This record gives sequence, structure tokens and C-alpha cells, in this order.
Amino acid sequence: MNISDLRQTLDLAQTVQEMEFLVRALYPICRSITGEGFRQTLQILQTQIPLTQHQVPSGTQVFDWTVPREWTIRDAYVKNSQGDRVIDFQRSNLHVVNYSIPVHTKLSLQDLKPHLFSLPDRPDWIPYRTSYYKDTWGFCLSHNQLLALPEDEYEVRIDSSLEPGYLSYGEYYLPGETPEEVLISCHACHPSLANDNLSGIAIATTLAKHLSEIHRRYSYRFIFIPATIGSITWLSRNEEIVDRIRHGLVLSCLGDPGHSTYKKSRRGDAEIDRAVLHILQHSGKDYKVIDFSPYGYDERQYCSPGFNLPVGCFMRTPNSQFPEYHTSADNLEFIQPWALQDSFTKCLGVLSVLEHNKTYLNQNPKCEPQLGKRGLYRAVGGPAGTGINEMAMLWTLNLSDGLHSLLEIADRSGYAFDAIKKAADALEEAGLLKALS
Amino acid sequence: MNISDLRQTLDLAQTVQEMEFLVRALYPICRSITGEGFRQTLQILQTQIPLTQHQVPSGTQVFDWTVPREWTIRDAYVKNSQGDRVIDFQRSNLHVVNYSIPVHTKLSLQDLKPHLFSLPDRPDWIPYRTSYYKDTWGFCLSHNQLLALPEDEYEVRIDSSLEPGYLSYGEYYLPGETPEEVLISCHACHPSLANDNLSGIAIATTLAKHLSEIHRRYSYRFIFIPATIGSITWLSRNEEIVDRIRHGLVLSCLGDPGHSTYKKSRRGDAEIDRAVLHILQHSGKDYKVIDFSPYGYDERQYCSPGFNLPVGCFMRTPNSQFPEYHTSADNLEFIQPWALQDSFTKCLGVLSVLEHNKTYLNQNPKCEPQLGKRGLYRAVGGPAGTGINEMAMLWTLNLSDGLHSLLEIADRSGYAFDAIKKAADALEEAGLLKALS
Amino acid sequence: MNISDLRQTLDLAQTVQEMEFLVRALYPICRSITGEGFRQTLQILQTQIPLTQHQVPSGTQVFDWTVPREWTIRDAYVKNSQGDRVIDFQRSNLHVVNYSIPVHTKLSLQDLKPHLFSLPDRPDWIPYRTSYYKDTWGFCLSHNQLLALPEDEYEVRIDSSLEPGYLSYGEYYLPGETPEEVLISCHACHPSLANDNLSGIAIATTLAKHLSEIHRRYSYRFIFIPATIGSITWLSRNEEIVDRIRHGLVLSCLGDPGHSTYKKSRRGDAEIDRAVLHILQHSGKDYKVIDFSPYGYDERQYCSPGFNLPVGCFMRTPNSQFPEYHTSADNLEFIQPWALQDSFTKCLGVLSVLEHNKTYLNQNPKCEPQLGKRGLYRAVGGPAGTGINEMAMLWTLNLSDGLHSLLEIADRSGYAFDAIKKAADALEEAGLLKALS
Repeated sequence: MNISDLRQTLDLAQTVQEMEFLVRALYPICRSITGEGFRQTLQILQTQIPLTQHQVPSGTQVFDWTVPREWTIRDAYVKNSQGDRVIDFQRSNLHVVNYSIPVHTKLSLQDLKPHLFSLPDRPDWIPYRTSYYKDTWGFCLSHNQLLALPEDEYEVRIDSSLEPGYLSYGEYYLPGETPEEVLISCHACHPSLANDNLSGIAIATTLAKHLSEIHRRYSYRFIFIPATIGSITWLSRNEEIVDRIRHGLVLSCLGDPGHSTYKKSRRGDAEIDRAVLHILQHSGKDYKVIDFSPYGYDERQYCSPGFNLPVGCFMRTPNSQFPEYHTSADNLEFIQPWALQDSFTKCLGVLSVLEHNKTYLNQNPKCEPQLGKRGLYRAVGGPAGTGINEMAMLWTLNLSDGLHSLLEIADRSGYAFDAIKKAADALEEAGLLKALS
Repeated sequence: MNISDLRQTLDLAQTVQEMEFLVRALYPICRSITGEGFRQTLQILQTQIPLTQHQVPSGTQVFDWTVPREWTIRDAYVKNSQGDRVIDFQRSNLHVVNYSIPVHTKLSLQDLKPHLFSLPDRPDWIPYRTSYYKDTWGFCLSHNQLLALPEDEYEVRIDSSLEPGYLSYGEYYLPGETPEEVLISCHACHPSLANDNLSGIAIATTLAKHLSEIHRRYSYRFIFIPATIGSITWLSRNEEIVDRIRHGLVLSCLGDPGHSTYKKSRRGDAEIDRAVLHILQHSGKDYKVIDFSPYGYDERQYCSPGFNLPVGCFMRTPNSQFPEYHTSADNLEFIQPWALQDSFTKCLGVLSVLEHNKTYLNQNPKCEPQLGKRGLYRAVGGPAGTGINEMAMLWTLNLSDGLHSLLEIADRSGYAFDAIKKAADALEEAGLLKALS
Repeated sequence: MNISDLRQTLDLAQTVQEMEFLVRALYPICRSITGEGFRQTLQILQTQIPLTQHQVPSGTQVFDWTVPREWTIRDAYVKNSQGDRVIDFQRSNLHVVNYSIPVHTKLSLQDLKPHLFSLPDRPDWIPYRTSYYKDTWGFCLSHNQLLALPEDEYEVRIDSSLEPGYLSYGEYYLPGETPEEVLISCHACHPSLANDNLSGIAIATTLAKHLSEIHRRYSYRFIFIPATIGSITWLSRNEEIVDRIRHGLVLSCLGDPGHSTYKKSRRGDAEIDRAVLHILQHSGKDYKVIDFSPYGYDERQYCSPGFNLPVGCFMRTPNSQFPEYHTSADNLEFIQPWALQDSFTKCLGVLSVLEHNKTYLNQNPKCEPQLGKRGLYRAVGGPAGTGINEMAMLWTLNLSDGLHSLLEIADRSGYAFDAIKKAADALEEAGLLKALS
């Protein structure tokens, strides 16, 4: 069974249910770039795929960066003078600024306010804020909540610690026919945010689970990392692997109702760029392709000039471009089953192109071969149609001069990759094409 | 006398009359990919140009194909029980499916119907059908004719034979200054169809006749072949010639009232592609340029990957895109004298570009030469105007660095090739340009 | 003090006043391609910049041309029979056809008319005409003036001489850090015409004056020459210098109210082309970029195929495209202070790009460096903002692989060159970038 067979036999409704179940299980956890929440997340993923947990000690030098102290958060609240928790971490882990240092004090409203963050334009939503590299503390709350706070003396408590510990990440390697790799990377450091990036985690995990069960041309490496410091750490510890990465995708924000967006690799014309573009063009749906820019997700690191890997980023609506981004409104209601399914299906389509994209040599390059005597002519449309498109065969024969891959033939001819692949299979079977090694 | 002189002195009205006469003479013949009709056609062309008839025996292996048995058709009809010929080959040679095997039997209407072909959407037209590579028989008729057939016992007779014989083709070679060749190819295997391809045959023949009388830089080879099997056969027997082909055109469907269409060679940027595009751009008329695809006419074979010749296809409305295509409505009324003339004139323009397109070296490359002291400045517009465009001279001087041909200079400057050519001639005369060998 | 500092500290209002003063001082002089008027012009420029006057004797061979005799004009008039000067060189030096041979005769109106030139469409304007290379004489006058001339016997006098003398030109060389040069060329041979080209002369002179006072990476060479024969003469005498010219601009017609126009060098993608385009794109104003053509100003000579220098032409409305062109309406009222200032500012912007455009190597190419620990993160927008754009830093780091200059980074990122330059400076300061030599 190969990826084409998988695409034909997979129960997509069932697959989407599994992804939704995973998202719901992961949603409540208070994740950060280090700490127990991240490890709990990996443990839940381990119920689906046998990934390896890596632990990198605080203080480890990773290129220009240092692995930070591990953050532990137990509780956090602001109590009014009646003892009511007016801001309560137990109700939403977004309420505490991620990586807040411990604090326990009493403050007037005026002195408390510089530590409170809200969104005046979205008065019901709690923002998500972090302070990984500056020692400070704070609370996030809805703007209506903030406006409702009376003058009072407030007890402020963040029961956290920042101690030497570990940066954790998960890695799952699936060996293939060749040691050349496809890298699938997603960040897993955000607390209760569903689209960014539980959607990406769920799709990556589900892809991994299904790929593990089929024949693979490429080897696959799935990594679940904290954003930025995680990819920097992984690259720093895996420099010898990097040369094997032929294609890569960063997956994020794949469940929102926006249309698909692909951000190209820094190279701009890598095979992964052309493969994703092909799938989007033939999806029959709106999509957007944007050029690489050195901002966004972990493609920033993979595409830094010292690596310049062929890694793009597949999303629906990009970071910062949907109002729910980095707020409590990026919740379980925000992500849509149909959007998860559509994103997943496109990922599978892209991987199918990569798995099957080869370059062939026409064994009868002078004039057309006589397809009729091989039963390949007028094969389509007739009552005994083989489903092989005759024009796709002619294109494949014409361009199989060793200089055009099947994907290039598909793009030049306008046919879908699958049609060209089917034609190439029939022609190879008939001895008219031979794959270049 | 060279091609420029020919273009200025040719009596176009007379030329069109000659082409129409030829088309009318060829129209009634029942041609096929082999057989007497094809040879009669070549004999008529021999009244215009001394072409050579080649005969290739049935059974000859030509690349992946085999030259088929020769088809002879003497008569064919369907008679009703009163003995009336209700379908009669004598009235239109389209009535019999081309390459039908012999048959003589009696059939009910029901048993006859699987062998009858009509066009329900065009109830007055007879379709044109062939079955070269599958032994079968059939009749084509108008849909109204079909509907009018009553239940009856019909006598069916096709007096044909399929015997070892020859595939015939015509070839006319005109040696030029250089052995480098321009190939003009047209298929001549269709029975009574006027646009496809008596129009192409008439234009090719007329071009050949006139080119034979002038000085030629290039050698020219005109071939009149059955479609597909003919070009495959020709290529298979002329592999050693192929390297000399610098430019080529397949000519077909050049008499219909649609605008000119050029289908590029597989290379897409060959000199022939740029020459045709230039002529169309400066024609002042609508036109269409389409990319190569491995379908259509014999360019499919010339542009197969093992040859990849710089051969495009010049047409008016492409095959399948006019309703009269491959029906009895592609008749003598369908093709227009003005369209034949326009196509012919454009062909001559293209060949003129090829004949005159050279690369020159500016002999005074540092700063402009002083045109005034050579009588070349303000030459245009003045009362003693030489007709040489001053800007065309400046462009030609500026770009004649050995890297730009006259055609490239014309395209970059926006001037017509003829204006640039005239400027180059004046500058060469003045010693300011020297042609690269 | 470098060019960036100059741009920030220069008093533009004062600068424009200086340019206007210079234009007013030069306007009345009767210039030609040789002679006293040209030398007076250079003397006035010498009050601003210490340029060198070069004198090239008549008869000197310069490539395909010969330095012409020197033209001296003392007086010219047409008197009616009452002795009134009805056409009078003293009132406008445009009245005499430039390079007219001496004449003193009496003529009827009919015999005089072939020597009179006017503009029927612009009946109040005097045209500007020359006859450098054909010995003739004539007068230019407004069409209304011409219509008002009665039948009479006219005394015609042109007190001129054409004698062996000199072609003069001015040159000002400012050595820089490197002997690689920027060439700024303007023609200075037109009599009382303000936009064409006193505007160019004033801007070039003022640029030279200010550049002389700052640190320069490039050496600069300003030349003030008669059109065509001047650039040919200069190139002919300076062939050994030509290889040092890295960038060049011809300046002309920079004071009219039209928007900026840049005509690209023959190369089309030289650094000067990209620099001017960048400045125009970020100017927030309409502009036009046109391809090179072998017509216009002295770029024709610099871009002749034997030199093919990276020299473009910076203008507002191009020659021949404003009605005042080469007429008495191209006067002091036609040029606008704001337009002169805008042109000057853009020139300074272009030179600033050239001066600062370097290619850097990211010293931390694997993953992003940690900007925060160097005080460079969130530097913008904050209260203690350094004015350095964070995204500009990320782009500069990402593309500083030795293959992209700052200008290319600016163009790819969409940021203004100045923002990228500022980012590069900060990154270089922090040791994160190192300039390639």
C-alpha cells in the first residue's frame, strides 16, 4: 500500500473525528516553550504515534541562543479585598502572562494596572501574551473585565517558578526507501489556542500515523517543538541531518474557515513550492500563495541563510491576519471540521506528489509510439475505458526527455498530477517509459 | 531576384487564382493515407512543381510503426430493396469510412445502423471518419438522411481492397546558398475536404513554385505526406537530413475566415517562433499564438523529444475548433480567397524574415557614426527621402554588437523587420555594418 | 560627514535659491556647441565649483567625427526699408539660427522667407533651430511676427564667423575612497532655454559643490559638454577612464512641472537603473521609467555598443514631449522651484543609494541571532525606540548571504533603502554583519 492507495481508501470522516478528539484533549493544557504542559502534550501525542521525547537542559547553547530556564506554573490569581478571585488562572490559562516570574503582593488598582493587558477593540476576548526573555509578570483579561474592576486593594499571586530544567520536544522518524527526508514541523508551545496551533499538531500527528502504515519512498521526520527556540535547538542538534532534507513543511493554523495559504520557501521555486502550488491550483477552491518573508513561524529558522532549506509554511489564514489570533477566541468553536479535513487532504495530496514525482526517459523518443497496438489509444471514453487520459499520455511521452519531472509535465500540460502519474504508470508498464534513477 | 523583390513584384490576385484553381482540381479526389487518390494528388501537384514521388512498401518498419497495406476503393453503396443507392460513394467520397474493408451483404436497418455515422447536431452535414488501424467498415451520412431510412432489407457493398502496396509521398527540394534547410510540411491524405488540407497544399505548392525562381539563402524542402504515418515515415528515412533543418512550418487549414493562429514549436523560442510572431504582430490584424502541445498535425512528430525540431504550425482556425472541421461542410465554399491570400502573404513574410535575418557587427561601435556626412541623416521625410528610417538606423547601429539579429533588433525597437532590414542594408553599403558569417 | 548626513542637514530652500540664481545668471548667454558663449558659461560655473576648462582644437578627429570650426556671433538682424530692426538678435538669441554663416544682403520678403522659421501652431513662440553641419543661415521668429511682415526690401545681416578655434568643455573630478567613478553629464550648448538644459546644469553644479564637501566612497566626475559632439569628444579623449565608470547619469530637463522620468541604460538592469527605480518607487509621486532607445541626449554615446556604459538619463518631461521644448517658451517662468528641488532631492537619494549599497555577510547565518540580548528587538515603536525597523533587520540578516546587496534586499522586502541601510548599520555594529570588500 502506497500513498495513492491510502488516499483512495482512507475514511476521511473518521480521520477528522480523530483530529477533533486530539484537539479537544490538548486544548485545556497550559503549554509554554518549556515545562510540564509541553511534556503532557507530547504524552498525549504518544497515544497516537510512538514519538521520542528529547530533553535539552537549560543553559545549553544553541547557536546564538541559550535554552532558557524551565517555567512551572501552579496557580495565579488576583483577589479583591473580599477574597474573590477576580482574575483566575484556573478559569483560563491565558489569564497569566506566559513565563511570568512568581509574585505575591498587595496592590492598589493603579499599581496593578501596568501589569494588566486587554484588547479594547475586542472587549470580550482575553489576549495571549508571553515574556520569555524578560523577567516580568502580568495578567491578561477581557477589556470588560478590566473596566469593571473597582478601586480596591488587590492580592496578586503568581505561583510560578523559573528553574534550571529542560526544553522538551517530540520527534518521530519514519524511515523510507531512501534516507532523503521530508520534514514536517509544528510548534506546540501555545496554551489554550486551538487554531494556532492544535490544528497543525493534529494534522501532523494524523499524517504521521497513516504514513507509518504504508510504503514510503522518502523518510519522514515529524517534529513537535516550541516555536523559535525549539527549531533553533533542533537544528543545532541535528546539523548532520539537515543535508538529507529534500522537502519540508511547517504546519500551522489549519483549522480556521479561511482559504488555504501557502508561504513559499526562501528559494521560491523548490519542488515543495511547486508541489503545494499544483495541489492548490487543482483544488477547485480559492487559495493564496505568498512569497517567503523572514517572519511568521519556524520557517524563519529553516530558511535562515546558513540552512536555506526547501521548507514552506502551509496554513489557512496566516498569523495576525484573523482577529481571533492570539486571543481566547481562538477556541474549539473557531476551528471547523471541514477546514481540518480540507487541510489534511491537501497535505496528503502534496505528499503524494512528492512521493510519486519522478523523471522518466521516453524509450521511443523519435516520433510518437503507436499507442493503438498496445491497447492504449482511445482508451478513454470508450466502453472499455482504462481511465487513462490519452492526452496525458502524449504529454508525458513528449516531455519525458530526462529534463522534465512528472510535476513539471503536469504543470506545463495543465493536467492534474494524478492524471499524468496514471499515464506514466501505463506507459512504463508498456515499456515506453523508464524512470531515471 | 530575392524574396524581398518577389514580395514587391508578385501579382497576388493572380497567385490566389492559381491557388483556387489547384484546390478545385484536387477537391473531388478520394484520398487516403495510401493509394491511388494520394498518387493522383501528387501528379496534379507535379503540373506545378517538379516534385519527386517516393513509394515506401507496405510492411516497412518506420520507428515504432509499420507502413500499412494500401487501400483501394472502387465503389461503395447501400441500396434499398428497390435497388436505389440510398448512400452512394459516387456522390461523396466522405460516405465511406476511409480504409473500410470490403463487404457485400444484405442487412436489416437495425443491423446496418452500427455501421452508420452521422452528426445529430449538424443534420445536413456528412462526417468524415477513418479506421486506418482497425479492420472494420462503415458509412457516413447526414443525420437527416439517416432519419429518413425506412425499415427495409439493404444491400451493402464496399468494393475496396487492402493489399500490400505502397505509402506514397511527394518531396521537392530547392537547394540554396547554404545546405541549412527550411522544412515546409503538409498532409495530403484527406479526401474531399477543402480547408483541411487543400488550403495548406495549395499554399505550399505556390510558395515552392515562386521560391524556385529566386535566389535562396536557405535550402527548402517541401513535403506532401499522409498525416502521422507520413511524417513518421519521412523522418525514419531521412534521419541524416534532420540536423540540417533550421526552421520549419506545418501548413494546414489556411483558407477559412478565422484569424491566423500560430502554434509554437516545442522549443517555444526558436527563430521560426519569433519570426511568425513578428509577422503576426505587424500584420495589423487579430491573431492568436498558442503554445506547443503534443496533438494537432505532424508537428507532433517533428517535435517528438528525439527530434525536437524548430517546427511550428501555421493555421487559421485550429483543427476541431471550427464546426465544419472533418465534415462535408469543409467544402469549396468554406474557404475564402482573401483568407488564402492573407495566409500566403504572411508565409512569404515569415520566409522573408528567415532569409534576411542576420547578425551584424557595427564597424564604428564607439559613439554614433556621423550619418550626415554619408547622406543618411534626415533621409526620411525630406523631399529627397531615401525611405530609410533614421531611428531604425540608430537602433540597428546600437544593437549590432554581434549579439542581436535583425529580428531581435526589430522586436526590441518595435520597428517592422523590413524597416530594420532596409536600414541595415544602407548601413552595410556605407561600410558601417558588416555581417557576421 | 557622508551623503546621509548631507541629506539630513542640507537647507533645501537655500539650495533651490542657489540653483535659481545660477539659472538666471546663465539664461541670457548665447551658447552654441563651440564659442565664447560656452566659455562664459563655464566661467560662471567656476564661481561655484573649481572645474577645469578643456579646449579641443577645430579639426581634431574624434572617432567618426571632426571637431567643427568655432562659431562667433556678434550681431544679427533683419531691417525693413525704414531701418527698423524687425528681427533682432539683441532681443533674443533664439532669433538667429545657431551656427549661421555670415550674411549681409538685401532681399525681398519672398526671397527672405525660405530663411525664416516659425511655429504656426504656437504663434507667439520663437523656435530654436541649429545648423551645425550644413553651411546655411536663417532667422527664427514668432509666427505672428512673420505674418506681420509686409512686402518690403529687407536688409539682412548676420555678423558671425566660423573660424578654426576650439570646442570647450568643463570637467570637475572629485576623488573618492575608490577610483571607481560616478559620471554626471549634462549638455550646456543651448542658448536661452531654461529647462533644456540650464536646469540640468544647475542641479549638476549644486550636486558637485555639496559632494565636494563630504566623504565620498566613489570618485565623481562632472562634465559640462556640448551635446553629441561633446560627449563624443570627451569619450574619444578619455578611453582609458571609461573602465572606471561604475554608474552614470545624464541630467536634463529637470525643472519643468511634469513628473520624473528615468530612461534606463542600454543594459537595462545596471545598478544605476535599479537605484533610480528604487528612489522613484519610494518617492510617493508619479513617475515614469522608459527603456533605453538610441535617441535623446548624450546617453546615446555613452551607451553606444563599443562603450555600453551603465549610464541612464534622469529628466522630468522628456525631450520633444512638452510643447515648450526648443522654443522661447522654455524660459525662466517655465521651470518651477519645487520641481528643481524635487529633482535635486531625488538625485541626492540616488547617489546615497550608490554610496551606501554594499553586500554583507551574515556572521550568524544558522538560524536568527537573538536580537533581544543585543537590545535590537522590539526596538521600534517602543518609547526608547532606536528607529531601527525590526522587520528590516530580519530581512537584512536573512538575505545577507553574500549574494544580495542592500538595494536588492530593499527591493525584495519592499522596504526603503534607508531603512535597510539603518538596519544593516545596527547589525554591523552588533557584529552580526560584515561587509564584503
